[in-house]
Parts: sequence; structure tokens; C-alpha cells
Amino acid sequence: MNDWGLLQPVTAGSRDVAGDDDVLETMVHVEAALLRAWGHVDGTSDQDAAAEALDAVDPSTLDRTALVEGVAQDGVVVVALVRELRGVLDHAGLPVTRLHAGATSQDVLDTALVHVAREAFAQLRVRLVAAGTALAVLADAERASVRVGHTLGRDAAPTTLGVQVAGWLDGISSAIAAADGARFPVQLGGAVGTGEQADRIAGRPGAITTLRATLAADLGLDDPGRSWHTERTPVLALAGAAATVVAVLGRIGRDVVAGSRTGVDELALAGGGASSAMPHKRNPVGPVVMSAAALQAPGLLSTIARSAASVDERPAGEWHAEWSPLRDLLRLAAGSADAAARTVAGLSVHREAAARNLAAADVGVVDDVTLAACGGVVDAAVDRFRTTLDDGHRR
Amino acid sequence: MNDWGLLQPVTAGSRDVAGDDDVLETMVHVEAALLRAWGHVDGTSDQDAAAEALDAVDPSTLDRTALVEGVAQDGVVVVALVRELRGVLDHAGLPVTRLHAGATSQDVLDTALVHVAREAFAQLRVRLVAAGTALAVLADAERASVRVGHTLGRDAAPTTLGVQVAGWLDGISSAIAAADGARFPVQLGGAVGTGEQADRIAGRPGAITTLRATLAADLGLDDPGRSWHTERTPVLALAGAAATVVAVLGRIGRDVVAGSRTGVDELALAGGGASSAMPHKRNPVGPVVMSAAALQAPGLLSTIARSAASVDERPAGEWHAEWSPLRDLLRLAAGSADAAARTVAGLSVHREAAARNLAAADVGVVDDVTLAACGGVVDAAVDRFRTTLDDGHRR
Amino acid sequence: MNDWGLLQPVTAGSRDVAGDDDVLETMVHVEAALLRAWGHVDGTSDQDAAAEALDAVDPSTLDRTALVEGVAQDGVVVVALVRELRGVLDHAGLPVTRLHAGATSQDVLDTALVHVAREAFAQLRVRLVAAGTALAVLADAERASVRVGHTLGRDAAPTTLGVQVAGWLDGISSAIAAADGARFPVQLGGAVGTGEQADRIAGRPGAITTLRATLAADLGLDDPGRSWHTERTPVLALAGAAATVVAVLGRIGRDVVAGSRTGVDELALAGGGASSAMPHKRNPVGPVVMSAAALQAPGLLSTIARSAASVDERPAGEWHAEWSPLRDLLRLAAGSADAAARTVAGLSVHREAAARNLAAADVGVVDDVTLAACGGVVDAAVDRFRTTLDDGHRR
Amino acid sequence: MNDWGLLQPVTAGSRDVAGDDDVLETMVHVEAALLRAWGHVDGTSDQDAAAEALDAVDPSTLDRTALVEGVAQDGVVVVALVRELRGVLDHAGLPVTRLHAGATSQDVLDTALVHVAREAFAQLRVRLVAAGTALAVLADAERASVRVGHTLGRDAAPTTLGVQVAGWLDGISSAIAAADGARFPVQLGGAVGTGEQADRIAGRPGAITTLRATLAADLGLDDPGRSWHTERTPVLALAGAAATVVAVLGRIGRDVVAGSRTGVDELALAGGGASSAMPHKRNPVGPVVMSAAALQAPGLLSTIARSAASVDERPAGEWHAEWSPLRDLLRLAAGSADAAARTVAGLSVHREAAARNLAAADVGVVDDVTLAACGGVVDAAVDRFRTTLDDGHRR
Repeated sequence: MNDWGLLQPVTAGSRDVAGDDDVLETMVHVEAALLRAWGHVDGTSDQDAAAEALDAVDPSTLDRTALVEGVAQDGVVVVALVRELRGVLDHAGLPVTRLHAGATSQDVLDTALVHVAREAFAQLRVRLVAAGTALAVLADAERASVRVGHTLGRDAAPTTLGVQVAGWLDGISSAIAAADGARFPVQLGGAVGTGEQADRIAGRPGAITTLRATLAADLGLDDPGRSWHTERTPVLALAGAAATVVAVLGRIGRDVVAGSRTGVDELALAGGGASSAMPHKRNPVGPVVMSAAALQAPGLLSTIARSAASVDERPAGEWHAEWSPLRDLLRLAAGSADAAARTVAGLSVHREAAARNLAAADVGVVDDVTLAACGGVVDAAVDRFRTTLDDGHRR
Repeated sequence: MNDWGLLQPVTAGSRDVAGDDDVLETMVHVEAALLRAWGHVDGTSDQDAAAEALDAVDPSTLDRTALVEGVAQDGVVVVALVRELRGVLDHAGLPVTRLHAGATSQDVLDTALVHVAREAFAQLRVRLVAAGTALAVLADAERASVRVGHTLGRDAAPTTLGVQVAGWLDGISSAIAAADGARFPVQLGGAVGTGEQADRIAGRPGAITTLRATLAADLGLDDPGRSWHTERTPVLALAGAAATVVAVLGRIGRDVVAGSRTGVDELALAGGGASSAMPHKRNPVGPVVMSAAALQAPGLLSTIARSAASVDERPAGEWHAEWSPLRDLLRLAAGSADAAARTVAGLSVHREAAARNLAAADVGVVDDVTLAACGGVVDAAVDRFRTTLDDGHRR
Repeated sequence: MNDWGLLQPVTAGSRDVAGDDDVLETMVHVEAALLRAWGHVDGTSDQDAAAEALDAVDPSTLDRTALVEGVAQDGVVVVALVRELRGVLDHAGLPVTRLHAGATSQDVLDTALVHVAREAFAQLRVRLVAAGTALAVLADAERASVRVGHTLGRDAAPTTLGVQVAGWLDGISSAIAAADGARFPVQLGGAVGTGEQADRIAGRPGAITTLRATLAADLGLDDPGRSWHTERTPVLALAGAAATVVAVLGRIGRDVVAGSRTGVDELALAGGGASSAMPHKRNPVGPVVMSAAALQAPGLLSTIARSAASVDERPAGEWHAEWSPLRDLLRLAAGSADAAARTVAGLSVHREAAARNLAAADVGVVDDVTLAACGGVVDAAVDRFRTTLDDGHRR
Repeated sequence: MNDWGLLQPVTAGSRDVAGDDDVLETMVHVEAALLRAWGHVDGTSDQDAAAEALDAVDPSTLDRTALVEGVAQDGVVVVALVRELRGVLDHAGLPVTRLHAGATSQDVLDTALVHVAREAFAQLRVRLVAAGTALAVLADAERASVRVGHTLGRDAAPTTLGVQVAGWLDGISSAIAAADGARFPVQLGGAVGTGEQADRIAGRPGAITTLRATLAADLGLDDPGRSWHTERTPVLALAGAAATVVAVLGRIGRDVVAGSRTGVDELALAGGGASSAMPHKRNPVGPVVMSAAALQAPGLLSTIARSAASVDERPAGEWHAEWSPLRDLLRLAAGSADAAARTVAGLSVHREAAARNLAAADVGVVDDVTLAACGGVVDAAVDRFRTTLDDGHRR
């Protein structure tokens, strides 16, 4: 594999937080944090230097061939990675006794993926807030700019550009709420999820609980108070939140494409992509890739949902099937949020075209009742956006 | 169509809350509640008798042929239904001026489907609590009943039956939390979602807000303070909650099938389904249909997620595409919860078989450290279940 | 369950070939055909009267409650159904020794569903041919009716109405080819698919082969020469063919909605559905439900694909998970083909509007080169449609 | 993005034919082939040197930053790529007049992806044949090695290891037939699919037809005689074939995991993956990743199916949404076929364990009737495999 974004334009140009290198680097940090957590459990500072050494590892210096062979041989990189990290510590004369102690591969990879998810959500939330803030201003400004609303592909009744934008803003508020509701639990349970190995190594019952809580705090993740090797609702919830973000933005993308269609012309975009066949043409690339993301996310979500029906103490395929679709969902959500922020920033509205389209539509008169109703919709959406941000800050 | 459950065994034998007749009946009640809400907005009791008359309608007395033709002709039953209901009121000499006033088809059908969803979740929550309560007792009782855990289809390390059951209980807690987190918003916006018609009919701005809030209160639904004709995250959230329930129960089903497999014999089920080819055989029907539900829900969820990327003031297909998969998800969730409650009630564990399997597995010794760790897992799961119930009650 | 089409408008008004009653009736015919096949294997006419008696059974006279309870109890109706049918034969004094002999539940239900699929494909093929025939005429008539083509939501370059229609015709040809490529294999293998029971009952090796071939011939199905209890590619292929039909028609639906949009006005539909909020409005119901079907089919297809990765001699859920989505796919395909035939029959084109839209688009001149190229596209599509029909007839 | 296989173990260790670099290189070859096709249409050898120069381009020497920016800016790499290639030709003093002439971005990318698909199917077919050949030998050798069959997770009736293997072989035959049925059409239509630009450049009607046919022949692809910019059944068919391969292999993976489970022990695998928590453990990595692939493919297939319902002359998202899932499906299929070939090569059967499991199962006696029936199943499967290979060779 040698992918750099050729076939997924929504991710091109964004900072990727979920690439293989990022996940690998995060896994190294998880092992480092586990060393520190062991230091806490053991009540010593013996692990500090080793943890520091791991945190300082440049993942690109690890033996890439050995890691890829490890994935092929073991089905997961962790065995080979731990071997590499042991080499690093050995070489530095640092202790290895607590390296990966009490953990199983799934603990490290699940925790790393959750960590990557947290970063992706943090990144996309910034973009959602930026887009929402601009949309709130736009909705207010266009609260009385009349246009014709369309239902089932037909001219339907008068509304305003402000109401349309308020509808997008409502979606952004829902997406932010979904992101703010996301939980990022650490994973730690050992071979079959009981934490026995950690307790045994520590020499006392309940050590796993302290170890897990400490690991969570170190990494800035939630402590679920349990392992969830086969109770996969945490992953399904993350996937659902990402899919919610993508869907909301996909709708905005579709509306922007429709509203900026030649002959409609109510919306306009700055810039635009070139066509290889029609040099004069400018394509609405942002909205198009937002729409494309919304077509892809549901299939990935379905894979996560299916894999959530797991079996045994760790399953023979369901877990492995989650990694790639979860990462892809995060990328789609983050990339689409980037595209949305850029799209909204470059969006302008054409009141005259909107009014002209309404006039041509023969859908009844517009009067103060119409405008008051439309203004009410805008106000409610702006209020909801602010409340959503406040709720997020209070968390 | 003439479906009565032949091809969806997980729903057979459960009380169906999402059948066409149920949805139709709920739509009639929504129209009745809208009449009452208009009475409140108008400040009169003129609508009371009409609302009462609608609530008293036996949906089976409506002209079924006309309704089916309405679906075929208009793509949605509401136009034909309102015609029928107008006939009912006319015939009784009751006023029809406020019938469906300010509303569009989507307002009535969305609200009805949300109402049906609320009933489905209420029903399945009872089953989840019943299953969870039994599992909490079982986990506690079997906290020290050793068995061998399996990972990637292999014997892995010692654990206990109690830990396995605690894992299911964790799933149930997550499912209950998902159900408790579900929101059931009323839909009301009129032709293009602005509420203009309601305001115009009422003769004052903001009437739509009062009308919507009153309608929500009457029906026991949430007031979202907006219409969400094309902001479909409320539907996606309901679908996600239902899929979460189904996934959690699918995992239990798969574990019960595996644990009750001949040669494993750690779990046993009361009853069991007959085979047409092997009269001696007893099939684990409950777990099988729970597993089958978990295979079906993700595809339905993906349809809802895709349809959530809507367009226009109301789209040309995305909304229509939601109805059937949402209903099917509700049925799968409710039916699977029923099956789970019955399965758990008939479940027994065989400690000796579990111990024998562990002894045969050569995965290391069991000692006090093992048992303490396993006990800790059980205690945490039971605590989490209780906390989840408490949180639910506090809502 | 009590479904009659309320929530699936694409099926309303079509002849349903996949309802529960239809499947049940087909299962009775499968049991009758199996009796006749036994007569052939046994070399007697002893089963003729019994088979005739079963074929004469009115399924509505069977004990519906017992059947539903059978589904709930056994996870599949066949055990209860065979009990009912045994009662019918007993009551008539007819022999029951060969009833369901050598068969398992899956043999009967799989065969019945394949039979239902064959009928659905036969029905939808007629509609596809009707639609295609009309489109071929229309494409030819409008080969030189210029319009502007759109790419990425923008005016792009000149084309003609004929080319647009030819594109739909290409889709119809592909859909017909997919339907013609569908195979409808009988299922027969007994308890674990070896055919042992049939051989044992017949008293000679290889009897299963004769029995299966005879059963297939009797029912007009293909003889696969094997049982495919867990080799589910036949079902996946049927689902893929149905999803292909639905996708092709969904594209036509979307294009018709776009082309008949107010302000575009290049296409017009006869009739149209009513709106409950806007009495003046006529909705493009056919295209809308075709689009909605195309949003639903992919999720159902994904469930079939997932269930195709089966396990064991018959799995604990994967098979059960197939029934409902397969049936739903058949319904969507048949209903959408019906809607397409009606839509095409009521479709008219507005050359002037198309020419005006092109003129307004500023996408370059139209000359003989344009028209010749467009004519070539039309001719190729019409030729391909004819070839597709010829290939189908040759099968 | 910087992906090298960390999160998709089924692809690790296989030759990747669908990476971004491969697709990019193929696109360059498509542009080269188009130059040659223009030479044919023009009746000159003027393009030969330019085509040769493009074929000689090392894609890694192209300006990667410019290409990524092109993806971000234009939503597709082709505009930037053509600019790069023009630079290559300019720099070499070669003519650029026919570079990309008559083509649009979609022509180049669709053709490249189809080409990549053809290579992936060619590669996986070799693996399928290898696996099938080994399974045919194994089925024959174990035709009479008795074991107990399982249905719905229960011991059911006697069968043999040969029958189980024959079932897998049947799947391989179906997968090969699906691969052999795949069609790989070239794409060429220009801006809105009419071929007008090509005709205009060539100065004669019908040039597009010759150009397309020549391009297809040059690239070893099928000539569809049309453009299929929005008639996406060719892509859906490829996706369906890939998903069929993955499903078939997923079933084998699941059966091998189940049959090699400790306590069952009927199957054994050479090698096995290491565990980071349990050094003694050997995981069935091949079957696990085959199972994991079968969980992922259906979601990707659903995205392709959804995107097949396109709109306009080229859509605003549906096309972009296809690229990544199609590529991922190809990778899953190719990787899973690799894993299957390796798994089958390292597979051994334990007759004694199988016989012992049967003896413990209490499912009836085994006699000559059983063995003859089982032998018949094996013979039929081996015959079908041979016929499938013969049919493939005859194509």
C-alpha cells in the first residue's frame, strides 16, 4: 500500500490525524503512558526514563519492514512493535520489565485508535464551530431575502435564504452536539479482559483499576472502569457521531450544489475546481466532496455496527474489521468539516436571483407573516447554535 | 403486501408496535392532537369534540383501498388519510377547519413514526432491564465458576462464567443508556418548514411555536423548537440507538450459541426449536434470531445515515427511503429484546463443563489472583448496571 | 405484524409477488413438487393424489396462529407447516410417508424464496422491456433536440434530450441483462446437505441427484447439482441483480426529477401526486419512489453479502438474516420497475425549454458535429437494447 | 495520508495492485494509450514518440505536491496530472496537441480504475485456482473421513471432512466464475459523454467510436461501444464480483477457525500469529483476516450500489464516492485470496479428532449410505471446479 490521498479528495489538503504513521506514533505513546502508569502503580520512578525514551522515538526510525511483516504474520502490528520498542529500551540500557505489562495487543491498538479519534473530533469541532459561526451571521443577514422553497423536486412555497442557512446551522449544531457527546475510553484488560495479569504483576488485587485510570488520565482519555474488548458500543458510538457529522455536511454540500446550479444562481462559491475537458468551467469541489463523503460514510458505519456484534473474549475477525472503517470515518468527518469551513468562508448569496426565482415560481405571495415566520426560524437556529456551544463548554 | 411475520422470526410472538396499522392509528392520533393544539392556540374548546371523534376512530373502519391508492398516487398516505378523516368529521357534523391545519404530510408521518419509536423503546427497555437484572444475579453467582476464555477462536486464558455474563451485562447497560439517551421530537413546520401557514391561520406570529410545543406535550414527545424536515439527525440518532441495542443482543446471542455448542456445554437453554429434518434436535432459536437481527440492522442503519444527507426543503426520495428501514430497525430491536429476555430467563450454566473445558485447555493455573480479578469485573459490571438504571430514572 | 404497504410506497399498487402469503403458498407447492419428485424416484404414482391435494390447499385455510407460533418457536415456519400439511393429507386419507422426505427446512424455504424471486424477475422484466421500448422510441425522436448537459451540478456542454434518454435506455439494457443472467437454483440437501436421507429413503445411492433434478424441473427452477446451504453466492447473485435493477431505475428517477424541476421544465409527467399542504402542487411520485428505492436497496444488499460469509453446515443466524432483505430487494425491484414503466408512459419532453436552457447556458455552439455525435449515442443505445432483448430470447 | 497497511492486515504481505501509486501510473499509461489511439485515428505515427515518452515516465518523478494540490483544488487529480504530462512532453520537444484530446477526467480515472481492477482479478484468480486445486485434492482424500455436521450451532448429523472441503471448493468455483464473468470496459466520452470533442478534433463523425475501440484494444480492456459516465452498472458488477470472492473466502475462514478451535481440533494450520499477551498462543491469522475482509466488503459494496443511482451527465459526488470503496474492495478480494491460498497450503486435517467428535455427538450411525452420499457431494464439487476452470479457459 502506498496511499497519499489520490482517491479520497475530501481528505486532500487537510491535516491527516488518522494515517498509519499517526496511529503507529500514538501506539508508541500509549506504551509510554503505560510505563508511566506502571510507575504510579509500583510507586516508583523506575519507568520514567523508559517512558521518556519511548515518547522520544521517531516512529519513522523503527524497522518498517519488520512492522509490516508483523502485521502480515500476526494480524496486528503490536507484537512486532513491542519487539522494536524493547530493542529501543535495551539499546538505551533502560528497563523493559514493565513494557506492555498486563496488556494485550487490543489494549494498545484500541486505545491508540480512540486517541486518534479524539484528535480527529477536536480538529473537526473547530471547523464546525467556524462554519457555524459564519452561517449564523449569514442566516441573520439573509433572514428576509426571499426565495422559493423546493419539495420533492418542485417549487413549493416562499421561504428565505436565511431559513435555508438556518437549516444548515441546525445541522451544524446537531453535529457539534454529536461530537461533544462522544466518549473516548481507554482500553485495558489483558489477555481475556479480566486484568488478571496486571494484578499478578503488581502483586495485589485491583491494580488493573488503578493502572487503567492512570493510563486514561495520562492520555487524556476517559476511564470506562472496565475493558470493552467485545462490548463494542464505544466504537459504534464514535462511528455514529462521525457519520452524523458527515451526513449533516453532506446535506449542506447538496444544497449548495443545487443553489449554485446555473439557472438557479442563488448561491456562489469563491474559486472552484478546474475541469480537464472544459477549461471555462468551475466546479463546486468543496460541496461535491462533502456530498461524496456522505455517500461513503453509511457503508463504513454499517461495518462498525455489524462488527459490534462480537463473540468470545476477543473475536476472530470482527475486531480486525473495525480498524480501517473507523479510521476512514474519522477521515471523512475531519476532511468534510475542513471542506465545509472553506466552503462557507467562500460562500456568497445572490438575493436578486433568489427573489427572481421566487417571482417565477407562482407559489403565492410573501408578506409580513412570511417574513416573521422566517425570522423566527433563523432566531431559533442561532439560539440553538449558541446553546450548543455553551453546553459544549460546560462539559 | 400481506406480511404477518413469516420471514422475520425475531418479531414473531412479540407485541408489534410498528406495524402499518399501528402507524396509521398513531397518525390519526397525531391529527387529533393537532386539533387540540389548535384549540389551545385559538383559545377555544371548539376542537375538542372533533379531536375526540378522531381519537375514537377505529383505523380498520377507514377505507383501506382508498388509503392504499393514496399511497400509490401521492407517495404518502396522508393526503388520503386527511380526506378520510374529513369525512369522519363531516359525517359527525364536526368542524374541519383546523384539521391538518398548518401541517404538511411530513409533519404527520414523522411525528407518528417518532411516537411509534418511543413506544418501541419503552417496550424494549422493559425487556432489557429484565434481562439485565437476571444477568446481574447470574454474574454474581458465577463470579468464581472458572472457564477458559477464547480469543481469535483459540483457548486463551482462564476467566469465569461470571465474567462472561458480566460482559453481556455491560452490553445491556450500554443498550439501556442508548435507549435512555434517545430523543423523540415532534415534527411540525408546514409546507417548507417555516411554520408560516400556522402563523397565518392563527393570525399572529409565533403561533407555530406554541402549536408545536402544545402538540409535543399532548403526545408526550419532545419539543425541538424547530422543524427538522431535512435536518435528519434526530432520525439517525434513533436508528443508531436501535442498532446499538440490536448489536449488544446479537453479541449475547452469539456467545450463547457458542457456549451451548455440543462439546462446549457451558450454557444450556430451556426449550429450543424443532428441526424438520432432525426430530431429536433442539435449536437455540432465541440466540439465533438475536444474531440474525444483528446481521440485518447495520444495513438498515446505513440507509438511514445515507438518507440523512438530504436536500431542498423536503427531498425527492431521501425521506421516503427512511420509513421502512426505521420501522424495521425498531422491530428488530424490540423483537431482539424480547428474545433476549426469554433467552436469559431460560438460561442455565454448567459449572462442571466450564471447569472441565478449562482443565483441558492448558492455559495456565487459576488461583486467588485470577478469582479476585474476575470478581472485580463482575462487581464493576453490576455497579454500572445499577448506575445506568439510576441515571435513567433521574431523567 | 400487519403490513400492507403504508411505509413502502414504491410497492403500493403493484402486484406483490413476495408477500408472506405468497411465500407460504409457494412453500406448499414446493412440498407438493417434492412429493411428485419422490413418485418419480420411487417409480410409482402413489404420490400424485397427495401432491394434487397439497397444490389445492388454500394457504389461508391453514392454522395461521399455529404457523406464527411455529415461527416463534422454531425460528422458521417449516416444522409447523409440515405438521399442517400432514394433517391435510391425513384428513384426506392420503399417504404422508414421502411428505418432506429427505428435506430440511432450509430446502423448502430456500427453494420457495428462489421461486418467488423468479416470479419477481419475470414480472419486472416485462416492465423493463416496456419502459425500454418506449425509451428507445423517445431517444430516437429526440436525437437532435438540443439541451445542455450538466456535470458536477454545473452547465457543462451541449447534448440532446435523445442522448439523455439513451443513457437511461443503456441502464435498462444493463438491468435486463442482469435479470436475464439471474439463476434460480432449487435447494435440496437434507439435514447437513449430503442428501444422505434421500438416498436412504430411496434405498439407493444417488437418489438425491435424481430427486433434486426432478424437483427443479417440476418447479421450473435450475438444477445446481448440489446443495448450497452455506455456499450462498446464488442468493448474493440474485440480490446483486435486484440491486442493479433498482440502481438503474433510481438514476432515471433522479434525472426525471431534475429535468422536470420548475425552471428546468425539459421533462413533464402525466398526473402527479397531491400534497397535503399545497393543493396546487403535483409531485413526481413515480420518480421519487424510484429514487427512494435506490436509497434502500444498497443496505439490504449489504446484509445479503454479509450473510453470504456463512459457517458450519447451516449457520446460527446468517441464513435467517437473509430472508427479509432478499424479499425486500425483490419488492423494491419489482415495484420500481412498475413505477418506471408508468413514469415512462406518462413522460413528455419539452424541446423548446431544452433549447432555451441550452441557449442560456453559454457552453458553446451546436453544429452538425454535435448532432452527429448525439445521434451516434442514440443509435448505439437502441442497438444495444435490441441486442440485449435478442440475447435474452436466445437463453 | 500515509498508509502502508497498518490497519488492513489482509493486505499486508500481498503485492498491492491498487495503491495510489499504481493508479497514478496506470493513469499515465491510459494517457499514453490515448495518444496511440489518436495516432491510429489520425492515420499518422506522430504520437508514437510522445506515447512512448509517457509510458516511460516514472510516476515518482512527477511533482507529488502539485498532484495532491490538484486533488484538493479540482476534486480529482487529472487536471494536475495532464499539466504535469504536458510538461514532460514539452520538455522533450514532443507534440502535445493530442494529449488528453477528446477526453474528460472521468474517462482517464474510470479507465485506470477498471485497468487496476482487471489486474487485481487476474492476480486473485491465480490464488483462487491454487486454493481450489489443493482443496479438490483434499476433498477427494477426505471423502470418507467422518465428522459431525453442525447446524444452528448444534451437532446435527454425520458428514465427512471431504464434504466440508467440497463445500469450500464449491465456493471457490463460484468465486472463479464471478471473476471470469467480470467485464472491464474502457471509458471514453468527453465532457458530457457524447464524444463530440473527439469527432470534432478528428474532423469526422464516428471518430469517437474508433478512438474508444482502439484505446480498449491497446489497454487490453473491453470496448463497451458507449460511455458510461452515469450508467454505473459496470462498476457495480465489478464490486459485486469482488464482494462475492470475499464472501466465499470469509466462509472458508470462519469454518477453518471453527474447525481448528481447541476441543474441536479437526483442522490445523501451519504457523500462526503471535499474541502480545500469550506467548504460547498461535492465532489462525489467515482465516481471521479472511473473516475480517468478509465483514468489511458488504459496506463498501453498498456504497458502490448507492452511487450507481447517479444523475446528470456526471454527478456531484456519486462518482467521487466510488473510487475509494472500489479500490478497497479490490484490495480485500486480492488480499483475501492470497490469505486463502496460504491458508489452504498450510492446512492439515485430523481424521481421528473428526471421528472422535462424531462419536461423541450421538447423531446416528454412519454406514455405506452415508459414505456414498458424501462421496457424491465430493465428486460433484470436483467436477464443478474443473468445469468452471474449463469454462474460464474457453472465454
